[in-house]
Amino acid sequence: MTTITEEIELKGHIIDSLILPKVLDTIMDMKGGFEILQLDVGKTKTDASYCKIAVKGSPELFDELEKLGALLPRKEVRTEEAPKDGVLPDNFYGTTHHPTFVYQGGKWKEVTDIEMDCIIVLENGSPVCRRQGLVKRGDKVVVGFEGVKVEAPQRSRSPVDIFGFMSSEVSPEKPINNYIKDLAREMKKIKDRNGFIIHVVGTAIAHTGGDRALQELVRMGYMQALFTGNGFSVMDIEKQLFGTTLGMDEKTGRVLKRGYKSHLIAINEIHKAGGIRNAVNTGVLKGGVLYECVKHDIPFVIGGSLRDDGPLPDTITDVMRAQDEMRKYVQKADMCIIYASMLHGIAVGNMLPSKVKTVAIDINPYVVTRLQDRGTTQALGLVTDPAVLLPALVLELKKLEGENKG
Amino acid sequence: MTTITEEIELKGHIIDSLILPKVLDTIMDMKGGFEILQLDVGKTKTDASYCKIAVKGSPELFDELEKLGALLPRKEVRTEEAPKDGVLPDNFYGTTHHPTFVYQGGKWKEVTDIEMDCIIVLENGSPVCRRQGLVKRGDKVVVGFEGVKVEAPQRSRSPVDIFGFMSSEVSPEKPINNYIKDLAREMKKIKDRNGFIIHVVGTAIAHTGGDRALQELVRMGYMQALFTGNGFSVMDIEKQLFGTTLGMDEKTGRVLKRGYKSHLIAINEIHKAGGIRNAVNTGVLKGGVLYECVKHDIPFVIGGSLRDDGPLPDTITDVMRAQDEMRKYVQKADMCIIYASMLHGIAVGNMLPSKVKTVAIDINPYVVTRLQDRGTTQALGLVTDPAVLLPALVLELKKLEGENKG
Amino acid sequence: MTTITEEIELKGHIIDSLILPKVLDTIMDMKGGFEILQLDVGKTKTDASYCKIAVKGSPELFDELEKLGALLPRKEVRTEEAPKDGVLPDNFYGTTHHPTFVYQGGKWKEVTDIEMDCIIVLENGSPVCRRQGLVKRGDKVVVGFEGVKVEAPQRSRSPVDIFGFMSSEVSPEKPINNYIKDLAREMKKIKDRNGFIIHVVGTAIAHTGGDRALQELVRMGYMQALFTGNGFSVMDIEKQLFGTTLGMDEKTGRVLKRGYKSHLIAINEIHKAGGIRNAVNTGVLKGGVLYECVKHDIPFVIGGSLRDDGPLPDTITDVMRAQDEMRKYVQKADMCIIYASMLHGIAVGNMLPSKVKTVAIDINPYVVTRLQDRGTTQALGLVTDPAVLLPALVLELKKLEGENKG
Amino acid sequence: MTTITEEIELKGHIIDSLILPKVLDTIMDMKGGFEILQLDVGKTKTDASYCKIAVKGSPELFDELEKLGALLPRKEVRTEEAPKDGVLPDNFYGTTHHPTFVYQGGKWKEVTDIEMDCIIVLENGSPVCRRQGLVKRGDKVVVGFEGVKVEAPQRSRSPVDIFGFMSSEVSPEKPINNYIKDLAREMKKIKDRNGFIIHVVGTAIAHTGGDRALQELVRMGYMQALFTGNGFSVMDIEKQLFGTTLGMDEKTGRVLKRGYKSHLIAINEIHKAGGIRNAVNTGVLKGGVLYECVKHDIPFVIGGSLRDDGPLPDTITDVMRAQDEMRKYVQKADMCIIYASMLHGIAVGNMLPSKVKTVAIDINPYVVTRLQDRGTTQALGLVTDPAVLLPALVLELKKLEGENKG
Repeated sequence: MTTITEEIELKGHIIDSLILPKVLDTIMDMKGGFEILQLDVGKTKTDASYCKIAVKGSPELFDELEKLGALLPRKEVRTEEAPKDGVLPDNFYGTTHHPTFVYQGGKWKEVTDIEMDCIIVLENGSPVCRRQGLVKRGDKVVVGFEGVKVEAPQRSRSPVDIFGFMSSEVSPEKPINNYIKDLAREMKKIKDRNGFIIHVVGTAIAHTGGDRALQELVRMGYMQALFTGNGFSVMDIEKQLFGTTLGMDEKTGRVLKRGYKSHLIAINEIHKAGGIRNAVNTGVLKGGVLYECVKHDIPFVIGGSLRDDGPLPDTITDVMRAQDEMRKYVQKADMCIIYASMLHGIAVGNMLPSKVKTVAIDINPYVVTRLQDRGTTQALGLVTDPAVLLPALVLELKKLEGENKG
Repeated sequence: MTTITEEIELKGHIIDSLILPKVLDTIMDMKGGFEILQLDVGKTKTDASYCKIAVKGSPELFDELEKLGALLPRKEVRTEEAPKDGVLPDNFYGTTHHPTFVYQGGKWKEVTDIEMDCIIVLENGSPVCRRQGLVKRGDKVVVGFEGVKVEAPQRSRSPVDIFGFMSSEVSPEKPINNYIKDLAREMKKIKDRNGFIIHVVGTAIAHTGGDRALQELVRMGYMQALFTGNGFSVMDIEKQLFGTTLGMDEKTGRVLKRGYKSHLIAINEIHKAGGIRNAVNTGVLKGGVLYECVKHDIPFVIGGSLRDDGPLPDTITDVMRAQDEMRKYVQKADMCIIYASMLHGIAVGNMLPSKVKTVAIDINPYVVTRLQDRGTTQALGLVTDPAVLLPALVLELKKLEGENKG
Repeated sequence: MTTITEEIELKGHIIDSLILPKVLDTIMDMKGGFEILQLDVGKTKTDASYCKIAVKGSPELFDELEKLGALLPRKEVRTEEAPKDGVLPDNFYGTTHHPTFVYQGGKWKEVTDIEMDCIIVLENGSPVCRRQGLVKRGDKVVVGFEGVKVEAPQRSRSPVDIFGFMSSEVSPEKPINNYIKDLAREMKKIKDRNGFIIHVVGTAIAHTGGDRALQELVRMGYMQALFTGNGFSVMDIEKQLFGTTLGMDEKTGRVLKRGYKSHLIAINEIHKAGGIRNAVNTGVLKGGVLYECVKHDIPFVIGGSLRDDGPLPDTITDVMRAQDEMRKYVQKADMCIIYASMLHGIAVGNMLPSKVKTVAIDINPYVVTRLQDRGTTQALGLVTDPAVLLPALVLELKKLEGENKG
Repeated sequence: MTTITEEIELKGHIIDSLILPKVLDTIMDMKGGFEILQLDVGKTKTDASYCKIAVKGSPELFDELEKLGALLPRKEVRTEEAPKDGVLPDNFYGTTHHPTFVYQGGKWKEVTDIEMDCIIVLENGSPVCRRQGLVKRGDKVVVGFEGVKVEAPQRSRSPVDIFGFMSSEVSPEKPINNYIKDLAREMKKIKDRNGFIIHVVGTAIAHTGGDRALQELVRMGYMQALFTGNGFSVMDIEKQLFGTTLGMDEKTGRVLKRGYKSHLIAINEIHKAGGIRNAVNTGVLKGGVLYECVKHDIPFVIGGSLRDDGPLPDTITDVMRAQDEMRKYVQKADMCIIYASMLHGIAVGNMLPSKVKTVAIDINPYVVTRLQDRGTTQALGLVTDPAVLLPALVLELKKLEGENKG
């Protein structure tokens, strides 16, 4: 086993972001040795701290320290060729979702399209993040840890918005009514600078009637992309055609006799029309969330799942193709709001770079925990009913828009 | 084993309320015999049906049939004296929460203060429902099943309100936004006829900021009694004094350093003032749900629990005394709304007569299921976040009040 | 609107299966008229009942009554040609998951491969159930309700096994330790007659260590097919290679530093080996659930999902192809046990004919409710921890096998 | 506002227990200033670290630092007299559940019966922890922070048992089958040194049949006290008398007709016998968990709640009296295991000193999170079904006992 000795540096809010103790912990866990050469702790909220440590340990240890944000002496990045399509060199570098740079030809180059649990390929000298399945024989895959730098997010002492002050604790016992106001303000800011908000929507939103507020969000300009599944999409259409979702009356919640067939008929109608866009254009589909998306030119991605009936002609049944279609929008996102969607929510959560403000809203704490627990300060988890939150959010946004006009 | 043969009668919506099949099922389950002598089924939604059946079986079987609403030939009610304080005669009659009558001296007399899982005592010739623990030696306790009649609730074919059309299925996938409107209409009707609405409130309502809407409900006249625990009460006070609940900032949700002590100080302040009413009257307490109750003369019952800190001087630490205090209001209630309160909610649910419209609102389906599953058509279970529902409910009520004025 | 008048017959346990009241309820709900011409109710648990009713109403009403098990006068089944690939004739018949027959040429013919929410195609004169997406232009699709008969399942008065006496109530408050014994007995019976048991397995089984008992079930002959996802499969392999699942140590539950990468390496190793079977045959994979399946020639289907990393070369990324692969085994199944798998569990649940004994075991009541709520008496839902149940189940099975030998 | 300047010291595993960063964080959060005078970090897992810091700030800041384990210069403890019964002096010191000492007459004296969110009274010169409600006029209550020292628990680098290596993450996705083995080993150790294990038991244990294993634990000597409620106690008795729990058959899980009355009769029988001990001694009660407790002289505390029927004569209906009864055993405990008991579990959790190894086992993650989240390394939360875990635990204990004999 190789042993390396290097001086590493830590800078920034290393005490309250717990970076310093994590670094020392990691060194000891991975059986390394260290000596603290210098430690200057910032005295005020705005001061940064600095620490220089001499570390002795395995290459894997330095790889870990790198991920924690330690600065190592610059070394040239190394690559190896993929031996076969879909097969990686053994020592491949696995990415985080934080901003990442490789050192090449005397310069740090940022990796584009960064996403967790993928790899880095050097393409014409530019580092690109890529999922395993897309690697082709001969691709130059980054290996080892040298020459790779990760910018770990740092928690600021003075949080400026809800994303900053949320602790990691996920609980229904939070001041939710204030959070709705804060979220609205954040969305307004993003809209004002022509930002990009992705909404990930589960079936419960159709069942509960939260979809009306969602339509309003499209019309008001707060949705730049919609990710959903075949289930929600069919219900959105079924509601327009029959006033039901899976046969449940949208007014009373009674499940109608012969109701489930409406679901199947809705699918058939879209097949007859030749897809959702055609159905809107030919007047078969006259309202709903997908209708608003078509009318306002908002892209939507319908990712298939094993549970699907039909499915709709617009549903992408190959899950890797569906992922890749979502990837097109994920990198541009400023915010991503996930409502009542375990499968799609976790799938999208895995693809988001850590810089995207992510909001997970679900009545089920499990989903929220899974989404918030991504090692970033940018995730906000709300354990509440998204169907009741959505109209309240629209109301707040309208107030904010009114104030601006006034 | 005694065997009895009687002709019983069934009347009303006995087919769609499933009373007829339940009766036949019960006879066979309890190893009885029967012959259907007459069956006239109503042909339209408003027609009642009629069935006469000759039944042969044990006294217990007839007791069960009685509970299902079967009419038996009239016999005089029987009683036995309680042998000791708190001890019942062996063959005591256990009550349901449906309207109940005993046949005495040629007349059906209604049992007052009916409540499930209690017993009936004849007091000066009047039948009274009483909990086991209050029975005194010598009390005339109703025994056996003869001379007791229960009016089982019947589901109408054409539901007139949400309490009618709710199926027993508890699910977050219901058109919640419509239900809020329906609930508001129902509350408005009750207020308009000077009815009585009990609110049962758990701690999450204080944590989440749902308490502001609750204060508004008191001011608007939609609360006639408040049942809660020591936890919510202390938080309601702590919020006025420190802007926190258990040390969590009500604006940001951050748990403040040294926060929990605020909870203990709040309790101490009320002890110093000599109780909540005094604290309001002397200006120590200047707002909150309890403050509004004192100001608007709304009675509140604070029932103690094993988890309590303090407790407040107003908290009733003996749970049976707390039950009995709640019993004073339960019989007058037209509606009872239970928010985020497992312990108090289930406790109150057990005491409610079946005629009271009961609404259970909780993010946790378990609580809602427990409360709705009470064999009555009067329970409405909403799996949603009560903290977000409450402001929406206030908004709907204000709309309704506005319409009326307009 | 067409109105039809017919005499229908009901036979069997129509009172306690609630078929009679449901029929009358349906007639009134769908605005039909009726007269009960004859009603003979069985007097004992083993007697069947009989009812003849004159009904007047719409074709849709008779379709519903058919589904409830009413016998209608025989009429020839009708078909229409599918106008395009994937497009159904407007009046298509949507299937249930109960045994279904079409009347053609004077004979009732059973529909093969019956599955809910699909359609029926006449293929060379034989009725076959088919999912919407597989319909080709010109296929003879059954339309309307005439000539279609559904055999509604009837609850017997004397339940013979746990599948019989389970009420529809899903709750963790059930005598689970007795149910494990009952389930073992049922599995033993199926094995003894060379039956077919499908296991549907979620990722939690690997995390919790329930997989060891699952391996034992394969070796003991209690698994005839395995349905799972990419997540469980990779963890099953990762555990063999690294002793971790998603980097969590299988002994202590600690999440190891650099742990998630083990997951990605496991995927890469299988890619290098050219698939799971090759990995077993070349000695790369030396244990685990998939290893036992390969060694004992048990077919496995790995259905892809949007959340997948990698995926493994064996994962079917097209969800419709994955469904169809599962369909190959679903029709042969005697029992299907679903552990901790929301996505795959519900997907498989949707495909199962009602005759298959279905057991859903999950710590999350929501999943169990969804699976049990399929209108059949053959579903058993256990809200418990499958990881702790599995070793107890193996223990019971070994006891039963020992008894037999002794 | 007073400002104080002091030199504080930190010793032990201050880096990996995160004590140092928490101290610095706290100083900055509470607007204090600091200078690190000395920092020696241990280089190996067994070395302790040392840090000396000059701190400037409010008395409250020093109070907080004390709680984090910082050593302050010794000052004499201060007290004030309680002005009235139940009323505390304004500046009272609120306790943690960690070992606590007051400095008096030149010596550190340990506070007896330490418990969180209580106060300290000097009684004949000895510091005693007491709940607010028991304070009498004239009691010498500790105020301010001077002269009070708290020993914060420190996480060791090399965990020696499951209580050490459990992260704070509560999840059903843990290697539960290994944890059962570890828990058994820990219990065996405690039994071998004549330790004290408290079991806190909820109603689900009776419903599910987990009570059989619990009886075995009493007989095997693994229970030294039982805390439960009226609900479990009545079911434990009802099961002996009728084979049911709340009318649910213990074998099949079917809810029997007329079943709930069995619950009321069970209560009446114990009233007739004059309490549980008499019922055992006179042969009315012949088995069950309470029976085993009586037979083996294990004390039990039945704490009342608002939901109670009856209650039993042994149920303590005053919740503060019930708490105080539990307090008698809590201080002697080495371990406390809480099964399926939200109310009693949280109540007992609040009373436990941090040194007691606490295990919370529940199918509902909420309960487990609440109990584990107590700022200690001694809590182990298992999200699993306690009913299925209990027999497996008994099996493991029997194996361990067998090994010892062999």
